[in-house]
Parts: sequence; C-alpha cells; structure tokens
Amino acid sequence: MTITERAPRTGDPGFLASARALSGRDFADGAAAGAWLLGARRRQRAEVALVPFADLRAWTFERGTGDLVHESGRFFRVQGLRGTSDFPAPIDVQQPIINQAEVGVLGVLARRFDGILHFLLQAKMEPGNVGLVQLSPTLQATRSNYTQVHGGSRPRYLEFFVDRRHGRVLVDQLQSEQGLFFLRKRNRNVIVETDADVPLDEDFRWMTLGQIKRLLNDAHTVNMDTRTVIAAIPLVSSGAEAEACGYGARRDPSTFEEALVASTLAVHSGVQSMNSVLSWLTEIRSKAVVDGQSCALDAIDGWHRTDREIRRDDGRYFTIVGAAVESDAREVGRWTQPMVRPVEAGIAAFVTTRIDGVLHFLVQARMEIGVWNLIELGPTVQYLPGAPDAGDGAPPFMLREVTDGAGVTARHRSAQSEEGGRFYQYVTENIVVEIDDRSPMPVPPNYTWVTLGQLNTLIQYGNHLNIEARSVLACLGVHTT
Amino acid sequence: MTITERAPRTGDPGFLASARALSGRDFADGAAAGAWLLGARRRQRAEVALVPFADLRAWTFERGTGDLVHESGRFFRVQGLRGTSDFPAPIDVQQPIINQAEVGVLGVLARRFDGILHFLLQAKMEPGNVGLVQLSPTLQATRSNYTQVHGGSRPRYLEFFVDRRHGRVLVDQLQSEQGLFFLRKRNRNVIVETDADVPLDEDFRWMTLGQIKRLLNDAHTVNMDTRTVIAAIPLVSSGAEAEACGYGARRDPSTFEEALVASTLAVHSGVQSMNSVLSWLTEIRSKAVVDGQSCALDAIDGWHRTDREIRRDDGRYFTIVGAAVESDAREVGRWTQPMVRPVEAGIAAFVTTRIDGVLHFLVQARMEIGVWNLIELGPTVQYLPGAPDAGDGAPPFMLREVTDGAGVTARHRSAQSEEGGRFYQYVTENIVVEIDDRSPMPVPPNYTWVTLGQLNTLIQYGNHLNIEARSVLACLGVHTT
Repeated sequence: MTITERAPRTGDPGFLASARALSGRDFADGAAAGAWLLGARRRQRAEVALVPFADLRAWTFERGTGDLVHESGRFFRVQGLRGTSDFPAPIDVQQPIINQAEVGVLGVLARRFDGILHFLLQAKMEPGNVGLVQLSPTLQATRSNYTQVHGGSRPRYLEFFVDRRHGRVLVDQLQSEQGLFFLRKRNRNVIVETDADVPLDEDFRWMTLGQIKRLLNDAHTVNMDTRTVIAAIPLVSSGAEAEACGYGARRDPSTFEEALVASTLAVHSGVQSMNSVLSWLTEIRSKAVVDGQSCALDAIDGWHRTDREIRRDDGRYFTIVGAAVESDAREVGRWTQPMVRPVEAGIAAFVTTRIDGVLHFLVQARMEIGVWNLIELGPTVQYLPGAPDAGDGAPPFMLREVTDGAGVTARHRSAQSEEGGRFYQYVTENIVVEIDDRSPMPVPPNYTWVTLGQLNTLIQYGNHLNIEARSVLACLGVHTT
Repeated sequence: MTITERAPRTGDPGFLASARALSGRDFADGAAAGAWLLGARRRQRAEVALVPFADLRAWTFERGTGDLVHESGRFFRVQGLRGTSDFPAPIDVQQPIINQAEVGVLGVLARRFDGILHFLLQAKMEPGNVGLVQLSPTLQATRSNYTQVHGGSRPRYLEFFVDRRHGRVLVDQLQSEQGLFFLRKRNRNVIVETDADVPLDEDFRWMTLGQIKRLLNDAHTVNMDTRTVIAAIPLVSSGAEAEACGYGARRDPSTFEEALVASTLAVHSGVQSMNSVLSWLTEIRSKAVVDGQSCALDAIDGWHRTDREIRRDDGRYFTIVGAAVESDAREVGRWTQPMVRPVEAGIAAFVTTRIDGVLHFLVQARMEIGVWNLIELGPTVQYLPGAPDAGDGAPPFMLREVTDGAGVTARHRSAQSEEGGRFYQYVTENIVVEIDDRSPMPVPPNYTWVTLGQLNTLIQYGNHLNIEARSVLACLGVHTT
C-alpha cells in the first residue's frame, strides 16, 4: 500500500531546540551567517535599472486589452481588476493586478546535524530585493520547473521535493500571496527533512532556526519566500518538548520568549476556543459581499500610462515599471520584466497582550479581492498608503500605538523586502509590540484576540492567514528579543 | 472585552449521547418522527409542474448572452462555464452553470432536554425534493434574509443565529455546494445551542441525533441542507465521552458502530498523520492546472435550447427546465423558477476497511471547477452519468464493488434528494461498504485512506470535503447499521 511510504515517524520534530541553537553546522552564530550573505552580495554582481516599457524585450501591451503580456503567453500578465466590497466598509477597487495562476513551490530542505534541525538556504539575487541578494528557500520553482513539463533546466535540489520516499514532510501548505497585487495567487510552502547526504552547492548553507530568526532582526536579509515558509513552523510542538528545553508550564511567564512558547502551546486554552475563532471568521466571511473580476487593463478608470510607468492619476499607491537586469549569478544573465513598485513603504504590525497570563495576538479579518479566500486574517495593522483599504480619513486602528510606541513595549521591528521577483524595492516594516496595560480593551468586531497556537493551527490548514501576517510571525523567536 | 461573550463552556458537547438516543422530547423513536413527517406531507399540499420557459414569470433569456436571469437581478443566474483541467486526466468542460454568489445560511438550533442534545428541524416543502416535504434545518436563509438588508419577512428563529450572546456555537463552517452545478457557491453551516425557551412553531420539532440518523436510513426524508450541517458533527469528541457511553478504547472493535466511534477518535493515530494527509492534498492541488471561467450561456458549444429545456446535444448529463410551484405552506403561494434536472441518478459511496484495526475511509481528490478550492475531497466513488469526469470508457474506480457488492459488506445504502430549491428530483444513492479482505490494496495516487477523525478535522476547517462526501458521512451513526 503506497501510504506506508508516508507513515509518520514518531516524536517531536525538534523545532524549539533548533530555534534555541545559535551555533550550527556551517556558522558559529547568526552574525557569521550574516557575514557570509554579505560576501555573497559582493560575489554575485548584479545591476538593475528601471527602463521605459519600450525597452522591455518580449513584453508588449496587448492589442485590444492594453494588458502587459509576454509574447510567449507564459510568466504572468498585468491586467485590470474591478471590484467592490462592503466589508469592513464599502469600497470600490480599480487597479492593475498581476495574474499568474500557476502555483509556485517554495521548498526548504531540512536535515539534522548533531541532532539539531538545520534548514538549507540560498543566497539568491532577485531584482526587486533591497540589497539584491537575500536568503531564499532551497527551492523556488514555478509549476513548469517543478513538473518539468516543458523540459528546461532542472532546479537544484528539486529531487528532494519530487521524490519524497526517503524524506519526512514537516510542513506542506497552500498559502495566498499579496492580495493587493496578485489575483488569487497561491504558493506551496513545503519543508522536507532528509537523512541523505546533500551536496552543498555554492551559495547554499545550512542554518538553524535560531540563526534564521536572529537574521530576521536585520533589515532586508531573509527574503519573503523564506519568511512565509518559516512562518509555518511552530516554535514548539508539545509541552514535553518545552519542558525538555527548560520552559516551564507556569502561567504568567516572565520573559517575552517564555510567553511565546507558552502561547504556542495554548491551542485549546486561550480565552476563546478554536471553534469560537473559526465561528467568528465564518460569520464575517458569510456576511461580507465581495465581488471582483479581472478585466482589460485599458478598462480601469483613474490610472494612466506614461512611457515608463502605469500610475494612478493621483500618483499614490503603486506604479508598474519596467526593469532591466544584469547578473553574474543567474542562469539567464540578462533579462527585462515588468515590476510592481509601491510608492511608499508599508507597515505590518501585531499588537499582543497577556490575557489571563497567556500572550494573545490581535488579528484582523481583512478583505483583499486578490487573496484566495477574499477575507483572510491579517496582522493588527496592515497599512500601505494609498491602498483601497487605507482610508483617507482616520488612521487605521492601532497605527499610532505600533508606530510611535506610546504605551507599548517594542518586541520586534525590522524592515523587510516583499518578493523581489515581482516587487521593486517594496519595503514593509514588520513590527510586534506588547501592550503593558492589561486592562480590558474594546476592539472593533473585525478584530479578535488569539493565541500563537491558534494562529499556527490556522496556518496549517491554509488560506487563513495572509502573507503579511505570516511574515511578521516568522520574525518571532526565542532569540529575537 | 467582547470576546468573553464567546468564551467556551467546558465539557463535551455530548454528541455521542445524542446519537445513541432514539427516544427524545417530541418523539418516542425514529419511526414516530417519520410518521410526523408523513403527516406534514399530507397537510402541506403542494404541486410542481414542469412548464415551458415562456411560462416562467419574471425569468427571461438575457439579450446578448442568452443567460437565464430574473428581471430583478436577484436570486441566481444560469450562465455558461468553460474550463479545462489536467487532473486527474485532461478534460474540457462546457456546460450551463448556476451563478449564485451569495452565501446562504444553513442553521440548526440545538437545545438540551433531560441532558440530551436535540436539534430543531422543520418539515419543509421544496419543489425539487422527491416527496416534496423533507426535514430541513431550523433556518435556511439567503444573505439578504439573514442580514435583513432588503427588509422583507424575517425568517423564523433568525434571532438565535444573529444574536448569539446567550448561545453556544457548536459548529460554524463555510462549505462548498455541488461543484458540478454551482460556480464557487458556499454556504455557512452553523449549529447554535441555546438554553432559552424556544417557541415551537408548527412544522418544527426537536429530534435527537439518533433519530435523525435513523431517518437517514429512509429514502428522501432528511434534506440535503440538513445532511451537510449534520455531517459537521463528530460522533464523539473525546475518549472520556466514548468510555462514558460504554465504548472501550480497545483496538479491533467487533461491531461497525464501535469501529466508527474508534475511528472518530483516531485523528493522530491512523496509518498516516494529519500532516501527511494535508501534504498529499497540497501536492495534488499544487500540481493540477485547472482553469475555468463563466461565460455567456450562448457561448458554450454542445448544448441547445428547446422551448422547455436547455440540454446537451447527446441528451446526457442534465437539463435546465422551468418549474411552476403551488403550495399552501410557503409564504409565497405560487411561483415559477428554473431548475437543474439531472438525466440519471448519481452515486456517492465510501469504501472503508480496517487498517491496523482502525476503520479507514478511502477518499478521492476530486477536481470540480465549481467548488471553491477547485480540488476537494470526495467519496471513494462519485458518479453521475454523462458528467465531464464520469468517463466514457472504463467505469470509475471501485464502482463495481459499491454497486454489486462483490467482496464487500454493505454498511449503509439510502436514496437521497439533492437540494430541492435548485435541483429537480436529483437523486443520489448514498452508500457505505466495508471491504472484508484486509490484505493490502493498491490505490491510485489521487486516493488515500484516512480515519473518520481526520475527515471531521478537515470538515472543521472548511472547503476540504465536497458536499457529496459530507452527505454520505452524515448518514453514518451508531443506529444506522
């Protein structure tokens, strides 16, 4: 019976031990891993320039629709999106959107050295990354790469994700990408643990979870694709594992790192049950009327095209630009492509607090026409100036608390790049704060308090947490504070 | 803080005790409940006639598209669907489809009498039901009914689902409807337990889970909407509850009912972990290329319209017909509407077997362009003659075993009506068999063996099991064999 090939091994995967390990096989600490990345940045020479659309090779504005398309029909298409929503407040949306229906694979290979889980990351150049080269997953593949239907060069380490008979799947989920810019795009987030010897190609290194989390304190170091995969890893899998690592089960943990571990274990013991969280979300999804359709790029109002940009008439939100790339380190040494370039930086921030001694996270049910489930959970504050939901009047709920720090304790802050293959220097501030004042605080009906364990469970079943929420959660670890 | 209103009560909800109770507040046994339904059928006089499209009032074929639409723009629209899929084998789809984007609410009110959970069902006429009157949920409401945005008459018992401060949510999920006929339609499946006194309107009665399950042995008695809500209820919630009801924890239970209880508890202890089940499904969803779009009804090939039917040129699969309804028992006494009328009856069947002493169910990853997730889990056999995936060559995997019973033990068989508000006398045989031969049996890669506990968990997170699978699972209980 083929299922025996997938029989689970018993025992904890050992995430917490890896999260605590700052020293690993390839690096003595996080700083050494960071130094190696800087070396890779020097080694991999690359240049990216913004160019007029006329200089894009093989990309043209399609006759009849005005869509920006590749002449092969492959890759992706920049088209129009028109939509309306009544949640949480009525909005109309008209904007360009990226249509790339194919599911990509973001795969991280894991292996134990001296009993500690390590993850194989790559120093990889993407044209939109701040700093160009960042730490990416072992495998970033399109479906065509992955299934090898069109032939083409085989991505490195693909075999570990295709033939998993000798591997153990730790994580395997379909998750939504940025709903403000992609139309129903999903990626597969997968971590496979192997016992096999793995040849170490240049630009690839094994890192512990602790090293990765430590590097997440640095700006523009760990790329978006790595962050979303890492977000799928719970900090701890069982009370026994926590105890073995020296974390007691006592309520009211004194340090934030103890509170994170305890909150991860609190799946069924928060202030509300999992059932209640699901019911809150189901009710919101049921009542909202969201309607969105792709359309011809020429058919949207309020945007116009110059020879270098597609931009909104008021100059806000984002532009579509053309980029020309030259690189030593990629298979194709030079290419051109359209990219999304937000006008300003965004903010993604979680507000946390202790309720009955357990650390809770304030999540928001967010409508984004582009996300698979139309409404998924976002961080407490998700703010991109000019976006349809950013509002022109009152600032978003809790924006002041997370930005000027009044009455809160900062727990994490880092500037991160969104996916550098599609976004040009799109920077999001990832922030976590803790509210010191533990007195009851009323929240709007589209917000609710949940534990980290509840968030991890929702992540496991896919399309519940948006990518901005997952990115912030990835930044949290026992060595990040 | 508003969340305290949703604080869970502790303790098992007591599903198993209710499933074992054949005697309840309103009926001494299942037969008495059945007799009451027959009385309601006599009392609620109704007539349904198929009529030419020209006799449909306020429904017309839209100029330019040929779509069948209501002149108010409300209710639903019969339009075209064109799509392709490469999973599990290449197919092209062109057919009419119902576009009804609104999320409906299927709500069942629960209350304890003498400590036993009862569920409030209604004897309700729907024009497409075989027998016309069947047992429906407490509340079947459209979003407009539910939110009362357009005013209109308030559905009975709505208040228990809108203001849940004094209720306890037992189940609350978004689930897909029939993917062969609806385009991305989802309904909310919700069960709310109340302690309040509930006025008992005519045609409403309290029934135990045991009575409902017993009635599911009878043909065309419990309607589709009730079945999908009931499917969300696990037979048992904990080992302690099972023991309290006299079910031991021993492996290799002797009766099928003991095996169902044990399998429900086997979430983490089947032949594969939940992680492994999710990984199998994620891989399939990632690799499949499914593309479908609604289009003008006039734009699909292979179908034509007569004055009474929209039908496929070969006469197979289904037709769209017009129905004229007269009824004593509904608010509106007469109306006309389009309906979907499948040409033949369908089959939905689960094959089960014991693996390592634990009862497992063989599920299939099924592509249906209409279901929310494109690929959701269906029963082992889901067969509607003429449907795109029914194949013209070899019969579906396991069809012979579930229909002629060779080498299997029958565990359940009943003829059920699909949703009578949209489908005209669409009958599906719901079947469960157990394979006696416990020797390893190879299954195709788009099938896998899971426990009932794993299926219940997947149901909880929504859009993992299709409606045909949920309907068959609803039929299983401790008194159904």
